[in-house]
Amino acid sequence: MSSECVFCKIAKGEIPCAKLYEDREIIAFLDIMPATKRGGHTLVIPKKHYEHVTEMPDELLCKTMSVAKRVACALMKEADGVNILLNNGKAAGQYVKHAHIHVVPRYKDDKIGLAHWESVKYHPGEMEEVQARIKKLLEEGNC
Amino acid sequence: MSSECVFCKIAKGEIPCAKLYEDREIIAFLDIMPATKRGGHTLVIPKKHYEHVTEMPDELLCKTMSVAKRVACALMKEADGVNILLNNGKAAGQYVKHAHIHVVPRYKDDKIGLAHWESVKYHPGEMEEVQARIKKLLEEGNC
Repeated sequence: MSSECVFCKIAKGEIPCAKLYEDREIIAFLDIMPATKRGGHTLVIPKKHYEHVTEMPDELLCKTMSVAKRVACALMKEADGVNILLNNGKAAGQYVKHAHIHVVPRYKDDKIGLAHWESVKYHPGEMEEVQARIKKLLEEGNC
Repeated sequence: MSSECVFCKIAKGEIPCAKLYEDREIIAFLDIMPATKRGGHTLVIPKKHYEHVTEMPDELLCKTMSVAKRVACALMKEADGVNILLNNGKAAGQYVKHAHIHVVPRYKDDKIGLAHWESVKYHPGEMEEVQARIKKLLEEGNC
């Protein structure tokens, strides 16, 4: 646990938050800089410090994800859709270096910059090359 | 399982895919319309048909998420970051009505339209109102 980490401080109750759920290992609270004010953009985090989601043990990630699903289900009672988003690394939009899950309520035409990428197409043979490369990375281990 | 669902057909082997992983319950394959060709934009799906992620039993969602984490970890060996994204409902960018997890490799300045929303700020009192509303939705049950 890092003494400088803002999410560790929230987990320990040293910084206040608009808490929605808490148990021994997980805490869920409203993001203070939400993508939308309409819904209830929520962050679900493990209390224990991990910088990246990919470093979390499966069991803890599962518990965190189960809470995110519960929050998403609640938000769906009001919203038209929900994004559950895990940003791993700065290039992926992770600004706080403590693993967290965003749960973002969505409304028709809300124009939130999330999940609206321009798709590209593989040229013949390209997909098979990528497939072979990723399979090798998977088989190398350490994952 | 829907006879018209393209992901059900992929799960049953009726439509080919660039497969990266498969077990009895889960299959992972390259998205044929990736956000980027550099990396290996992957979809991880349960073979059993659920329209929404929020309808999946916790245990199956956990297994699916564990595979997504493994793929994300493999992609991180090459990429600068990875987004793990679950789109729930059309308003959230879900186009195939079979629950799935996107694993999207990210590179510095790749300009992919994902996780780059404009944050807003709550006015005094607004966050507490949202918190109370969401807590009520959570406590109502059915989630």
